[in-house]
Amino acid sequence: MIDPLDDTYFMKRALQEAEMAYEKDEIPIGAVIVINNQIIARSHNLTETLNDVTAHAEMQAITAAANYLGGKYLLDCTLYVTIEPCQMCAGALFWSQISKIVYGARDEQRGCIALNTRLHPKTVMTGGVLAAESSQLLKQFFIEKRSK
Amino acid sequence: MIDPLDDTYFMKRALQEAEMAYEKDEIPIGAVIVINNQIIARSHNLTETLNDVTAHAEMQAITAAANYLGGKYLLDCTLYVTIEPCQMCAGALFWSQISKIVYGARDEQRGCIALNTRLHPKTVMTGGVLAAESSQLLKQFFIEKRSK
Repeated sequence: MIDPLDDTYFMKRALQEAEMAYEKDEIPIGAVIVINNQIIARSHNLTETLNDVTAHAEMQAITAAANYLGGKYLLDCTLYVTIEPCQMCAGALFWSQISKIVYGARDEQRGCIALNTRLHPKTVMTGGVLAAESSQLLKQFFIEKRSK
Repeated sequence: MIDPLDDTYFMKRALQEAEMAYEKDEIPIGAVIVINNQIIARSHNLTETLNDVTAHAEMQAITAAANYLGGKYLLDCTLYVTIEPCQMCAGALFWSQISKIVYGARDEQRGCIALNTRLHPKTVMTGGVLAAESSQLLKQFFIEKRSK
């Protein structure tokens, strides 16, 4: 039987968030947090709009999910994010003790894998879900930016 | 001539913030951000009160300082924080391009030095200012917690 609520399904929701960021002229990265197949937080990068380097999609999603759950630990939750988290976001995810992180495309320069950010022992991270779509959106954004 | 507005002066202000956290039963860490000898942000850890792992003193200070400056980069700013920043906070400070970080005491377990978090090339970090007072407040907090 095919599970309609698989990683691709939730990553598509994260990509929709990334597209909303794109429309706001924000670096297009989106995220959702899921528990028991239910989305409890959705967010996209808002660093320009909020004038705040901490307003990455993941950071907002962590805050929103904790608010929804009424507790600050994201046990049994999965974060879907279109691009591999940076040091800041991976560091926040460490504190959240989140169960799973699924990213779309790698960030070879500033991602937590290249920079060796420590994840919580309770956390599993996988990637490559809708990687081409996630990185394509980002590339397109920077090409447009440069041509302006 | 003695400069009354030296690192010790500003770290004392950060320590006052840490004491405010202590009184709220929060892990007692405080921070201030300074530009041209003027404090433009002060904050203390509020992870319990806000139910949010991202509510470290430094994160709030970064957001508040950017809000004050009307720009998201903290060029020419110095962060004073009573305990060495964690991965998340150091990662946020990377994005902020802050000029200087001065911490009080080391965090040998989860600090950005032990975990090798990358700082921005524009950022200089020093520590050891009021280290004994900063770590003493933290130790006292955990001793009290355990005896409850």
